[in-house]
Amino acid sequence: MSNAFVSIIMGSDSDLPLLENTMSILKGFGIRYEARVASAHRTPDVVSSYVADAEKRGCAVFIGAAGLAAHLAGAIAARTTRPVIGIPCDGGPLSGIDALYSTVQMPGGIPVATVAVGKAGAKNAAYLAAQILALTDPEIDAKVKADRKAASEEVMKKDQKLQEKLVNI
Amino acid sequence: MSNAFVSIIMGSDSDLPLLENTMSILKGFGIRYEARVASAHRTPDVVSSYVADAEKRGCAVFIGAAGLAAHLAGAIAARTTRPVIGIPCDGGPLSGIDALYSTVQMPGGIPVATVAVGKAGAKNAAYLAAQILALTDPEIDAKVKADRKAASEEVMKKDQKLQEKLVNI
Amino acid sequence: MSNAFVSIIMGSDSDLPLLENTMSILKGFGIRYEARVASAHRTPDVVSSYVADAEKRGCAVFIGAAGLAAHLAGAIAARTTRPVIGIPCDGGPLSGIDALYSTVQMPGGIPVATVAVGKAGAKNAAYLAAQILALTDPEIDAKVKADRKAASEEVMKKDQKLQEKLVNI
Amino acid sequence: MSNAFVSIIMGSDSDLPLLENTMSILKGFGIRYEARVASAHRTPDVVSSYVADAEKRGCAVFIGAAGLAAHLAGAIAARTTRPVIGIPCDGGPLSGIDALYSTVQMPGGIPVATVAVGKAGAKNAAYLAAQILALTDPEIDAKVKADRKAASEEVMKKDQKLQEKLVNI
Amino acid sequence: MSNAFVSIIMGSDSDLPLLENTMSILKGFGIRYEARVASAHRTPDVVSSYVADAEKRGCAVFIGAAGLAAHLAGAIAARTTRPVIGIPCDGGPLSGIDALYSTVQMPGGIPVATVAVGKAGAKNAAYLAAQILALTDPEIDAKVKADRKAASEEVMKKDQKLQEKLVNI
Amino acid sequence: MSNAFVSIIMGSDSDLPLLENTMSILKGFGIRYEARVASAHRTPDVVSSYVADAEKRGCAVFIGAAGLAAHLAGAIAARTTRPVIGIPCDGGPLSGIDALYSTVQMPGGIPVATVAVGKAGAKNAAYLAAQILALTDPEIDAKVKADRKAASEEVMKKDQKLQEKLVNI
Amino acid sequence: MSNAFVSIIMGSDSDLPLLENTMSILKGFGIRYEARVASAHRTPDVVSSYVADAEKRGCAVFIGAAGLAAHLAGAIAARTTRPVIGIPCDGGPLSGIDALYSTVQMPGGIPVATVAVGKAGAKNAAYLAAQILALTDPEIDAKVKADRKAASEEVMKKDQKLQEKLVNI
Amino acid sequence: MSNAFVSIIMGSDSDLPLLENTMSILKGFGIRYEARVASAHRTPDVVSSYVADAEKRGCAVFIGAAGLAAHLAGAIAARTTRPVIGIPCDGGPLSGIDALYSTVQMPGGIPVATVAVGKAGAKNAAYLAAQILALTDPEIDAKVKADRKAASEEVMKKDQKLQEKLVNI
Repeated sequence: MSNAFVSIIMGSDSDLPLLENTMSILKGFGIRYEARVASAHRTPDVVSSYVADAEKRGCAVFIGAAGLAAHLAGAIAARTTRPVIGIPCDGGPLSGIDALYSTVQMPGGIPVATVAVGKAGAKNAAYLAAQILALTDPEIDAKVKADRKAASEEVMKKDQKLQEKLVNI
Repeated sequence: MSNAFVSIIMGSDSDLPLLENTMSILKGFGIRYEARVASAHRTPDVVSSYVADAEKRGCAVFIGAAGLAAHLAGAIAARTTRPVIGIPCDGGPLSGIDALYSTVQMPGGIPVATVAVGKAGAKNAAYLAAQILALTDPEIDAKVKADRKAASEEVMKKDQKLQEKLVNI
Repeated sequence: MSNAFVSIIMGSDSDLPLLENTMSILKGFGIRYEARVASAHRTPDVVSSYVADAEKRGCAVFIGAAGLAAHLAGAIAARTTRPVIGIPCDGGPLSGIDALYSTVQMPGGIPVATVAVGKAGAKNAAYLAAQILALTDPEIDAKVKADRKAASEEVMKKDQKLQEKLVNI
Repeated sequence: MSNAFVSIIMGSDSDLPLLENTMSILKGFGIRYEARVASAHRTPDVVSSYVADAEKRGCAVFIGAAGLAAHLAGAIAARTTRPVIGIPCDGGPLSGIDALYSTVQMPGGIPVATVAVGKAGAKNAAYLAAQILALTDPEIDAKVKADRKAASEEVMKKDQKLQEKLVNI
Repeated sequence: MSNAFVSIIMGSDSDLPLLENTMSILKGFGIRYEARVASAHRTPDVVSSYVADAEKRGCAVFIGAAGLAAHLAGAIAARTTRPVIGIPCDGGPLSGIDALYSTVQMPGGIPVATVAVGKAGAKNAAYLAAQILALTDPEIDAKVKADRKAASEEVMKKDQKLQEKLVNI
Repeated sequence: MSNAFVSIIMGSDSDLPLLENTMSILKGFGIRYEARVASAHRTPDVVSSYVADAEKRGCAVFIGAAGLAAHLAGAIAARTTRPVIGIPCDGGPLSGIDALYSTVQMPGGIPVATVAVGKAGAKNAAYLAAQILALTDPEIDAKVKADRKAASEEVMKKDQKLQEKLVNI
Repeated sequence: MSNAFVSIIMGSDSDLPLLENTMSILKGFGIRYEARVASAHRTPDVVSSYVADAEKRGCAVFIGAAGLAAHLAGAIAARTTRPVIGIPCDGGPLSGIDALYSTVQMPGGIPVATVAVGKAGAKNAAYLAAQILALTDPEIDAKVKADRKAASEEVMKKDQKLQEKLVNI
Repeated sequence: MSNAFVSIIMGSDSDLPLLENTMSILKGFGIRYEARVASAHRTPDVVSSYVADAEKRGCAVFIGAAGLAAHLAGAIAARTTRPVIGIPCDGGPLSGIDALYSTVQMPGGIPVATVAVGKAGAKNAAYLAAQILALTDPEIDAKVKADRKAASEEVMKKDQKLQEKLVNI
């Protein structure tokens, strides 16, 4: 898995701001990634051939992000047996509930590892990919563990600030 | 459109009892149809190649029926510009709401003509297909209009029975 | 079907901005259309007589757009056996879920071809109408196929832009 | 209002068992009623002409009961300015939520007095109709008040039984 | 019913802007009304005693408007056998779905005539009250019918404007 | 608080089987309780006077259980400043979502401590009441802690059984 | 319970503005409280040890506030047998429905006293805590009762203002 | 990763029949697994210490299955940086929607890879775990790919049966 990388596919370039959360976290972990705009409905052949090609080139984890009737992660999952993470994007009138159901309710045999709707999910897709890669990459594992510790300390710092604030009331 | 036919694709053979509603209505209208079991996730290439082939052979309308994260109708729509009708199947824990959202919330440019969840939808997929074919087939048009009139008379007969019943109370 | 046209009926003129998406796509395909403001509840007789008249004059496809308890598409469908497309409009407190259920859950025999809630649906109503007309109009068929190809290329261009952007990071 | 009566319209005769709750309560109050099977979608003209005729003959309150995309009460309301009560019927895959939204979310100017989904609603449609008629019919008013008192005493009796049961534990 | 009036009770004065829709429609129909701020939870005794008193003084129809766990209309209904109309107010995080369910799902015997969530409902509460009063007040009946006709003509005027606009495109 | 007791009020005696879960847990903790059938809508005065009386006689915690538009717990809370626990009962067509929203979404100042829908809630109402009484009753505190420990050990026993079962596969 | 205090734990400092509602009400009642930022997922050990320690130091009631998959109140409840109040925070794409279900649907034996989503809940958590403490603290009891009376009078004052306003129209 | 195994934790032994789907698929892939009954709320320390221990002993992937306010997978994720898969169990009154939201809506940094509600999810948790392990275990990879191919052929066989059936009609 020395050439392992993560592939991020977004159904529309309007999802890019959301996915910058994903990319910056992967970058922070030193994880190589590719990002593509490709649509399950508008460019299904691009999705199919890209996924097959990416798998051959060493893609270890796919991330699919889409809104509305969000079929993208499922369409990726149909073309590979690599782990596929799905980010349900909000934005439409149904606030991403449609994307959540379309992403998570996959039939038996073709799983999509679904994370939270919107921004929390965009972050967690990166964390989940990192945790998967960390299984065999001690460097990433160390970074993931350090990040978790830092997040924990961040919460504690915020708590300390709150204590100072409360004392001064 | 002399060789026009309707193609019914179901994601699983467990949807067959539901789709027998569809087939028997098409048959009643004298409309040729094909029915296939093919899965957007388990046999995506079968879906793709079948849809392309069916379109070439004269398929005028596609019907896709699936439950859960029901991507099938959308996957068909991504492969053809023929009208695609989607039946959201109920049965899973979310009672078909997941299938409804996954089928109807298609992005701009790739429509799926969605009908009701479950049995009412299975019937209406056939009626909608017939109405589309009726646009250029006067025979089907006459049968659709006759069926509508019969349905109307059926309601009136039921009303009459109710009146008799009420009188006798 | 030489005088075939599409009829768009909106329940309120407040839906006009939404339906300009529908009209501009039809216009782009060279499809003749009429647009009417008519309400299933405030002017039911106008809906009834207009639908009957439009069908006689060659209307091939009806599009009904309404919000809240969106009965309009169903009311049209009750008066014609031409294909009826329903656009559930968002805007009210329930974000269009009420309009979606009111439009799609039609009883057996009276189908409404429901598309997505709001803007995506307003576009897809036009695409679906075009796909139906394309069945017997090679010119429209060619335009629909060209549009699909263009949409596909648009996605690929956006992907290319993303690749350039990513290289420069 | 000496010839005032209540008109019950059901979209399908499958709703009859539900509406027997409505009818038996009206009968108990000595309120004249008519009951019809008529469908907003299958027999729209029957609904229109029946409503107009019933209003002329002295119908004071209409009750419309339907499931799925339940347009019936709204279709009645579009044809009369008499009060219209809507009963959302459950039974389909969405448990009557579709019927509730389709019945209650009426646009300004065309109200439907919506009661609970299913059996509680079938009863309350009768009670609401009785309360409306009671405004000008002292006999009905007395019966409605007596029924309310009896219902209250019934609850107290059940409480007493519970107290006896608890003592004996 | 010569001294008949409508009583509007709002759970909070923050609902006043919404209910000005109700009041201005009643005023337009020449219907006398009272409006009170009273809370099912904060001033239950005020609700009880006011309702009893208002009924004695000739209140023919009650209107209760509340948001969140909207018990107000039900609490009124528990204290009178006059018709009670419930307006579910939106505004909270659940967009009024909570208020809708809390208002409409009344148990058998204590009906609340529920109208649409938010502004459409605030209007329809007034229309429904007017339709009830119109049963025995020919003047109100004439005004309600005139208003319905005007609303119908308003839609037709908007349609005409649209036709002019479309011609000029 | 020597004469402290818990008061359970159920909107209907049909909720009794559900509330036997509540009563048997209270009994197991040696907590005195009263159980009453009283309806916020059918016997509002009984609720009011009983709550006032029970508070005077030493009621420390009220439990209200109701389904549909479940106003009971809120109606109790409007009449006392003792803690009120609300159990949303399932059973109707909306599976208790209506009761949940009607119980939990109380306006600021009149809290209802809402527990889970249905059976889990019926149990947790008793546990929560016990935890509140345990604050000043060391005996109940000891029993609650012992029950928690037993529940924990029960889970561990079930785990052990699973281990034995797995070994034998 | 002379050293009794309330402990407020928030999952993130972004919830602080919401919880200032809680704190200011507790302060108004003269109730001692602690407020901590601690996360069920980022600092689970801090939650565990803090809860155990706070219980020993005399914490009588815990309040947990979190959004999304809001596990915090449940995680507190798993570590103490003191009453735990849960505030489901809104803010994410699902408007707090996710937080509501994650907080209220606790399994039998581990209750969380859930209050309303968002601001109403933040207030009611304080009121509920005060009502619990009031059981054994006559001073708090008097203040809670006075506050309830003041809230009631506030509503009546608002009603009076409305009456003046209506007279002047 | 030679001693890698999958750990399945279920919140209650009533989930065992559901998880037998998970176990039998893992067994079919020759993947070692442990299965434990442990509750986030009843035995939080068992969960914590077991997860820490399992990670040390080589657990590569955790699977958490729970219903209602399903905190289990999140509680596991809070204690490890190994990938955690969450199965939302249905069964309660809310049909698993509560468990889905409680499992998937995790905050940034603590992902849970959520799969479908109920049986489809129980299967997909095993498939997803296998796909993760397959990244570094060619044997599992081969088996996963073979299984996918078999599933695909199974669909095609079912299609063939349907074709035979249709011919014979």
